[in-house]
Order: sequence, then C-alpha cells, then structure tokens
Amino acid sequence: MEGLPLLTSITNPELLRSLSPGELSLLAAEIRQVLTNTVSRNGGHLASNLGVVELTIALHLCFQSPQDALVWDVSHQSYTHKLLTGRYGCFATLRQSGGISGFTDPAESVHDFFRTGHAGTSVSAALGIAEAKRIRGESGYSVAILGDGASTCGLVYEAMNNAGRSEAKMIVILNDNEMSISRNVGGVSRYLGHVRSQPLYRITKRRVERGLRHIPGVGGSMAKGVRRVKGFVKRILTNTTLFEDLGFAYIGPVDGHDFSQLHAAFESAKLTPRPALVHVCTTKGKGYGFAEQSPESFHGVPQFDLETGEPIACGRSFSAIFGEALCDLAARDTSICAITAAMGISTGLQAFEARYPERFFDVGIAESHAVTFAAGLARLGCRPVFAVYSTFLQRSYGQLLHDAALQGLPLVLMVDRAGFVGEDGATHHGLYDVAFCASIPGAVVYAPVTEQELRTCLGNALLPAAPAIPIFIRVPRGCPAEIPARYQPTNAPFDCCGEASAAVAVVTYGRLFAAACEAAEKLRAQELPVKILKLNCVLPLANEAARAVLTCAVIHFFEEGTRGGGAGERFGALLLDAGYRGRYVLHAVDGFPRHAPVAELLREYGLDAEAMQSAVMGEITRG
Amino acid sequence: MEGLPLLTSITNPELLRSLSPGELSLLAAEIRQVLTNTVSRNGGHLASNLGVVELTIALHLCFQSPQDALVWDVSHQSYTHKLLTGRYGCFATLRQSGGISGFTDPAESVHDFFRTGHAGTSVSAALGIAEAKRIRGESGYSVAILGDGASTCGLVYEAMNNAGRSEAKMIVILNDNEMSISRNVGGVSRYLGHVRSQPLYRITKRRVERGLRHIPGVGGSMAKGVRRVKGFVKRILTNTTLFEDLGFAYIGPVDGHDFSQLHAAFESAKLTPRPALVHVCTTKGKGYGFAEQSPESFHGVPQFDLETGEPIACGRSFSAIFGEALCDLAARDTSICAITAAMGISTGLQAFEARYPERFFDVGIAESHAVTFAAGLARLGCRPVFAVYSTFLQRSYGQLLHDAALQGLPLVLMVDRAGFVGEDGATHHGLYDVAFCASIPGAVVYAPVTEQELRTCLGNALLPAAPAIPIFIRVPRGCPAEIPARYQPTNAPFDCCGEASAAVAVVTYGRLFAAACEAAEKLRAQELPVKILKLNCVLPLANEAARAVLTCAVIHFFEEGTRGGGAGERFGALLLDAGYRGRYVLHAVDGFPRHAPVAELLREYGLDAEAMQSAVMGEITRG
Repeated sequence: MEGLPLLTSITNPELLRSLSPGELSLLAAEIRQVLTNTVSRNGGHLASNLGVVELTIALHLCFQSPQDALVWDVSHQSYTHKLLTGRYGCFATLRQSGGISGFTDPAESVHDFFRTGHAGTSVSAALGIAEAKRIRGESGYSVAILGDGASTCGLVYEAMNNAGRSEAKMIVILNDNEMSISRNVGGVSRYLGHVRSQPLYRITKRRVERGLRHIPGVGGSMAKGVRRVKGFVKRILTNTTLFEDLGFAYIGPVDGHDFSQLHAAFESAKLTPRPALVHVCTTKGKGYGFAEQSPESFHGVPQFDLETGEPIACGRSFSAIFGEALCDLAARDTSICAITAAMGISTGLQAFEARYPERFFDVGIAESHAVTFAAGLARLGCRPVFAVYSTFLQRSYGQLLHDAALQGLPLVLMVDRAGFVGEDGATHHGLYDVAFCASIPGAVVYAPVTEQELRTCLGNALLPAAPAIPIFIRVPRGCPAEIPARYQPTNAPFDCCGEASAAVAVVTYGRLFAAACEAAEKLRAQELPVKILKLNCVLPLANEAARAVLTCAVIHFFEEGTRGGGAGERFGALLLDAGYRGRYVLHAVDGFPRHAPVAELLREYGLDAEAMQSAVMGEITRG
Repeated sequence: MEGLPLLTSITNPELLRSLSPGELSLLAAEIRQVLTNTVSRNGGHLASNLGVVELTIALHLCFQSPQDALVWDVSHQSYTHKLLTGRYGCFATLRQSGGISGFTDPAESVHDFFRTGHAGTSVSAALGIAEAKRIRGESGYSVAILGDGASTCGLVYEAMNNAGRSEAKMIVILNDNEMSISRNVGGVSRYLGHVRSQPLYRITKRRVERGLRHIPGVGGSMAKGVRRVKGFVKRILTNTTLFEDLGFAYIGPVDGHDFSQLHAAFESAKLTPRPALVHVCTTKGKGYGFAEQSPESFHGVPQFDLETGEPIACGRSFSAIFGEALCDLAARDTSICAITAAMGISTGLQAFEARYPERFFDVGIAESHAVTFAAGLARLGCRPVFAVYSTFLQRSYGQLLHDAALQGLPLVLMVDRAGFVGEDGATHHGLYDVAFCASIPGAVVYAPVTEQELRTCLGNALLPAAPAIPIFIRVPRGCPAEIPARYQPTNAPFDCCGEASAAVAVVTYGRLFAAACEAAEKLRAQELPVKILKLNCVLPLANEAARAVLTCAVIHFFEEGTRGGGAGERFGALLLDAGYRGRYVLHAVDGFPRHAPVAELLREYGLDAEAMQSAVMGEITRG
C-alpha cells in the first residue's frame, strides 16, 4: 500500500468528502497507477477505466451510494468504483479465479446495484429502480452511467423513451469519449459530435433567446395568429437536443476530468424535477500515454508489458483465420458482405473493412438490427456474414427466428467466443447459442475445430447453392488446438474416429474434440479403447450419427454449452428414438459459470481430457 | 364485383396512374367498403387499414413496385396494398385457411418485399434492401412504412441511427395516427404531438432564419470569436427534429388523406440525397364511424356485426382471468406491478391499470426494455409481472437470460397466446417459448389449463417465498377448456390420471390436456386404457415425472410447440437417463405453420383428440 496513502485511506466512499480538491487530484493519480498496474498483470478493460476516474470520484462525492443507486452500463468501466467502495484490498485479484469480477455484481458489494456485461441495460434498470423507490416510498436517486457507444443500443432508446414521460428521480450520465469500443458509428454519434463542439451551449441559448424577442412576429409584440410560431421558437430553444425531445432535461456538455464542473452538473441534475441527462466528455485512456494514443487497443486487453504497452504472447486466433478466409471468398464473390456490431477488430474484420469498405457495415452496438438488416441484404441477393460474439447474439434471438429463419433467408452468423470465455465471466460465456439455435426451425450450426474446417464451413455456407436458412459457425475464443494426425476431421456432418469396435463412445463437438482425442490416447494406453463421435454439424443432428454409436454399451456426451435444450439432450432423444438400450451420460454446463481461466472452468465442469478419462473409467467400474 | 368498378379495374398498381383525382377518391371509398365488409366477416386488422387507404394509393402512384421496394412495418396495415397489387380477386379469403395472409409474404406476391408480423423490422430491412441495391447496382428506392407505435421499438432506433450516416436511397414513411395499438406512450409520442401541432413548420423556419440575421453576434456582421454560435444557430435551424438529429431529412407533417400533399412529399423525398423521413398524419379507422370513435377496439378484431360494430361471441378468456387474478393479488400485496408492451387491453390488464395506475407500466412496443426494466423493479423488492404474447417475448430472450435469470431476480412472465394462434399465422404462433426457456438456466414454466390452475400458479409465483428466478406462466389464446371431473388437475408439478396400470402413456401439457382426456375416453370405450401424464410444471422437468411412466411399453408425448429443444426432447433424455426401454414417440411441431383456425392446425400437426387416438392405436398395431 506504500505510495498510495490516499487510496488506502478511502475504505468507503463517504470518506471522499474529507478530501481537499488537491487531494482529489492526487487520489485520481493513485487510482490510475493501480488501474494500469493491475490490468497489465491481470488483463481487463483499461482505456475506459482510465477515462472515468474523476467522473467516478465526483459521482461518489455527489451521490450517496448505496442509498443512491449507481448503475454502470456494461460495467467494464467500474474499476474505480470498486476501488472506492472497499475493494482496493482485493483489487489485485481482479478477474482472477476466486477474485473480484471485472464487472459489477451485487453479490460482491452493496454498492454494485446491477449485474451486467452487455451494453445498454443501465437505463432500463435504473428506471426500474427509480420506480421501485417511488412505489416503496424509499428515498434516493437512481443513476445510470452510460457510454456513448452504448447509446446506439435500441434498448437504451426504449428506456429513454419510457423514462421521458415518468417523474422518476432518475439521472443518466452520458460518458462521451467519442468512441464505443472502437470508433463510434451512426447518426447519434455524429449528433453528439455536434453538441460536443458547442461549449457555449447555455450562454448561446440565452443570447439567441434575447435576440429572438426582436424578430417581427416572434418577439414581444406577437399577434395571436402567430402564436404557433412562438410554440415553435420555444421548442427550438428549450428542446434543442435529441434527449430533450425524448423528455429528458439536458445538462452539459461538461469536462469529465474537472471536478468542479462535474459537481455543478450533478447537483443541478439532482434538482431537476424530471429525468435528467448529464453529458460528460472524457478522454479514453487518460493518463497512460499508450492508451490515450490507441484507446481501441486498450479497450479489453490481455496482460501487457507496462513499459512498451505491447500485449504478451498470442497465437493466430479463429477470429484472424475467419477474417482472412472471408476476404479470400469476397474476392471471388462480390455479393458477400460483412457486418459487425461495433466489434470489427475483435471479430477479425479489419482487413475486410480495408479491402471492401463498400461491403462492410459496422452498425453500432445493435445486434438486433444487425440481423434484420442482414435479412434485408439477403432479400436482394447479397450474402451477409454477421460476425458476433456468442453472448451478444442472444440479443438477436427474436430477429433470427422472425426475420431470418421464418423468411427462409440465407444469413451466415460467425459466432465468435462460443463456449467458456474465461476471465470476463458469467455475462460473457458463450454457452447458450447451440441451445437457442435448437429452437429455430431449420437452423444449421457448425463447430469447426481446425483452420481447414473453419475455411470449409464458411466456404460451403456461402456457396450460391447453400440452403436459404441461417447458418451458424461457432468457434471458441483463442486459437485452433493441435489435433493428432489419426483424428483429423473430414467435412462430413460427423466423424467417427478412435476404436471402431469400442464398447464406449465419447460424443462431442467444437474445441472439446481435442480433449477427447487426448483422453482417448490415454485410455488406449490403459487398454480401454473408445470410439469418438465428432459432430461437425451440431444442428441438425443426423439420425446416422446416433446409429454410429448404437452398439456401444456406454455413451458419454461432452458439451461445452448449457444442458437445457442443448445438443446433448437432443442426441439423447435421437438415441431413444433409434432404440438405444445402453447407458447415456450427458456432461454439460449447468447454471451460470463464474469467471476463471478457460482451462480451469473446463476442469471444473468435467470437460477437460482428464475429466473425460475419469468419467469413462468411472462408468466402466460402475457398469 | 358490382358496385366496385374502379377497384375491379386496378389489376396492377401501374393502372392507378390513369385515374383522375376524383376517381382516386372514389377508389378510396370502394376500398373502405371492401375492407369493412371483409374484416367483419373474416376478422383482422380494421382501423389501421382504414387509416392508410389514401397513403397506400399515393405510395403506389409515386413509387414503382416492385422496382421500388415497399416494406410494410408489421404489415397488418397492408390490406389496401394487397387490393392494389392483384389480390382483390382473392381478398375474400383473407386470413382463411388456404387464403391470403393478413400480413405481407413474398411467397404471395412480388410486391410483398418482406415477411413480417413483429413491429419495427421495416427500417432495418429497408436499409438492407437499399444497400443491396447499391452493391448490386440495381435502381429503385427502398421505402419503409412505419406506424408511430412502432417508433418506440429499439430496433427502429438502431436502424435509423445506422441509416442516418448512409447514403442509401431509403425513405421512411412515418404513419402517425397518434396511437400504436392502443394509445401511444413515451417521450417520442409526446414529441410527435409537438411536431404535429406545427403545420407552419417550414414557413416558420424561414421566418426565424430571416429574423436571426439581425441578432447581434449571430447575423451578417458576425465576428470570428462567435463562429461557434453560428454553428449552434445553424443546428437549431437545420436539425430541429429528432429525426434530423439522427441524420434523416425530415419532410412533413402532411395530411395523410390528401393525395396532393402526399404526392408532393413523396416526390420531395425521392429528390433528397440522403435518407428521408416523411411524417404523414392519418386518422385510424377513417371512414367507418365505429372504428373512428373507438380505434382501439378495431385494431385486431374477430368477426363483428357490420351494423352495430359489436364483436360476435366470445367467452371469458385466459387473459381476462389473469387480469382479475392479478388485481386480487395486488390488493393484498402492494409490491406487485404490472407491465405491458403496448398490449394492456389484449393481455387483460385494463382493470389493473384503472385500479393501480401507480403500479401499472405501459412501456410501449419495447419488449426488451420491459424485461430489463422489470429486473430493475425486482432488484428493489417489487414484484413485476410482464404480460406479453409468446411471439413478442422472443424479442426479450437476451434480457431474460442476462438481466433476469443470471441475476437471480424474481420476474413473472404472463405468456399469452402460447401455442397456435390461428389466423394471424406464422409470425404470431407462440410455439417457441418452451424451447427458448429451456436454454435459460433455472427458468420455470407452468402451463395452467383451468382457471383455478392459472390462479394458483400466479399466486404461487408471487409469494414472498417464491424463488428468485424468472417464472413463465403460459396460456393459449382463448378460453379454458372443459376438463372432465375425473381428470381435474392438482397443483403438483405433474398429475397422473386415467388408467394407472395402462401399458400406454400419453404425456402432454397445456391445452392439449383436454384433447388427451377426450382421446383417453374414446380409447377406454375401445378397451384400450391409457395413462395420462399432465405436466403442470413444464420446466424444470421432474425426474419423478419420467419415472411415473417408466413401466409403459409405449409413451406418446404431444407438444403444441416446436420440436427442437422443446419439452418433448428433454423428456426423452430423462427417460433414457432413467433407463427406459420402451418406445417413445414425440409428436411436436416442425417448421413454421401457416395461418388457419387453431382446430385445423391442431389436426394438421396430429395434436387433436382424434389424432391422439389414432397415434395410440397405430403404435399398438405396429407393436
């Protein structure tokens, strides 16, 4: 704790009020030091957290948490909030197994009001909290802290629209750092740019108001017939922002690194009799040169070298392979388009954007729109590929069903970060896509394991003769695993490998196949041969796949996905239908797994090679 | 065809151009006559269709369908479009089995560009179509026709934000009839009210602009130092509407029943070099007195008496029972809140709204927000109940998983119109909720069949001691069926009835239980006794339920829901796990069923009493 006397002393946010303005600035510097050091060691979100240090301090100065509820949007930027609410002592465990989460979690602190990891939920939640306070007669404000990136979310708009007519004691802090995860897109972003460039906003407003009194037909001598003109003039003077059009009082823009401006704005918002929006401008990456210069690279980062800012180690990921493969295909087929929801870089699309800008669409954090937009493209013969994290694709379920599958339109969904994602934890694990796809009639899901498989799946999905249905290609975070030569997959719907006549079968798909191969090798060494059934096409499941293992006395299905409604349950139904009379054991994921390294989670849920080996042996002993 | 000479002559929309202004008005009158007559006989959407007669004629006059793509939002208001695009001859079959759909469907006509039944998809789709035209070098406009009700959808905002920066040849027609399905809610609605009251908009704008030149520091003699002021003034003059803030050119408001105003506005929109929004004001129900006076009652209607406007027959529906039951519970528990997404009346909440306005929330057509908002309410101890149609709840999947289940918050979802809905067809069938709920860890799904069951489920779900998870109570459209005395359900997770020692079991849930009872009675008469297993709690499925039928040689599972990921597949997995060695036959719904009366669809998918009887007998013969 040496060298950080102020931060050490702030054991709860109320103590902030005893600090002088000079001390607050020193505290901010201490916090930045901790943020940079910890994220360089543990990975996590850096640039966004560096940008909101003063903003967070000012919030805890002006509001009384937890009587006032602070709801952080996405909450990847809540590190300073954690440091100020009694979690400095355990901050070194950030994102580590058993340590504190990289997002807010009510189970972790009474100061964390809402658990989140997806963008745009804060305004809805804060409105709910504000209305609940009213209904229950509890005092206190409800404050949503929202990045400008999330302002492209339809969910935020739905909530703002709903809140605009309420009298809830709700305040939205719009943290405008001029970019969402990478640079911002869309009309709202341009609009914010306009407003940002107007620091004279309030002064100007008064000046224009004075001037207007002298306009004939508008000013003091206004005739009855032009009363409507007055209404109009009043509107352009009082409702000059998009947020005011939605019913919010607008305050700002204010400098998000200036304590006194922040203080004045928040106090003013507290006095507003209707919902207020405070527009705060911050610099992403503030205080760490590398991050300020390249905030995109320091959004969500793995461990990095503090001196050089370079990330430590990294193979050639599935995302990178996908990006290359799509460029190759797009060179030959000019109807291929790529869509991202503000994740162009992390899904591997930067080369596509550079080479085919006229066919590249970054729609903002708007996964629902992305799918319906893709359906529109497909309707006229384009071949859209939407690259998206599994967890964020949950937002598109209704559109996948109603706008893609029901219409019989050929969409390709490149589902990245499928399976456990590790340190980002429960809100980010990509464990549900196979199960929700199972409920979409006709949906096809591939789970390629090698580079060649991924290239083949993508190529086949984009063939002119490919079926007019949504095709999902799901890959995990990270790089393809090494597959032993004798287990190399083909492009059939499923592969059988290992011992053809074995009495025990291991059925799996995706990255677990590598673990299954490893387990099979170990079991072979113990003279316990197993057959491996690798599902290349997870949905629809071929009846033939079930028949391929029908003679086995024991079948283990290992699924890196949720149990309910997943491929394992469906495979069981297929086996039963085929008259299977042996023992079927389904190993899948129950509940919402915590944050921890992927390898640890696979072990915990009985899905790594060792667990597979034990499961097979245990069942044989039992049998 | 007598008495409708003009409509009979318009066999394709190009022929509209040969009509004189007077003839266009006569045509509108003919169309209104057909609309009112047909909907009175077939049921359907009336008020919204009566409101857009002139608008639709004007669209087909100014745009060349299908070279210009007309994308109708929801498309419940597309009847005039159907009449003008060659479907007058078959219009009497509207919504009837084998007849034309009540929504647009590309399979029905080249003039129907997009299939839809959910609100807010049109702008996304139209943008996709416009971009595809650009990429493929095809000419023509892409036009989305959007009601003001759908403007509360986050999806529309995501699309508008995305379009605002594009140069697509896209036009959005905002059909503003001052209400969504019932009255409109939220900030955008109030905002539209403001704009509507300003018919002098464009004139005024010029006048203010002239006046401003004389303001010191703003006008002609502006000094360098106040250049920013100019930017501001320019903004308030050029970007004075919410839509312009999003990047659209705004044209309007225009009278939606005046052909010449509509024509001028559309031609102006075609010339705009960026996406344009035309704000059209219409009167819902126009031309049919009853519908004009009470447009809410004439939104989606069953058959009604043309002379009195009264609906023909109707029992006491599940929605009505739910509304009463919730009021009773809310009288005793002041923390109970009700939420609707613009469907207060159709989900039975009108009495709740009247009695408990401070705990009633109509959030607009915003199902995603509704769930996250409910999560916020629940977070502070309120007990929210969100009443929603099964098909529209698809929009909330991501929020149900991320904001409710993952956080362990107690939300009650009253899922109405679960199962086949009949004449509204594929976009509206509630066949997917059980399957998508199956993928949400911890989700509980009840399927009450009688009034008493519904009341008990709802009461239990709202007990203070109820588990902190999302609880879904799903009921079909319409009224509870009669259940014979000997089959009366209890409140256990499942009920066994019929012949305890029978070799054949019928497993089912929800409304199919009544059919199962009927089939069982018939089979008993044929001396083929069956056991019925009724799942009161569909999820989670109790292992005990599987054990209750384990000794049966044949088990039939009948599911009025999609096969993939549904309860039937899961029940199969449970049976296999319990060591079942008999024959399991799953009867469920595949694909996307067409529109037809519910009874006809149940028969078609083998789910009515007769089909159950045949299935049981067929399997015995086979065995």
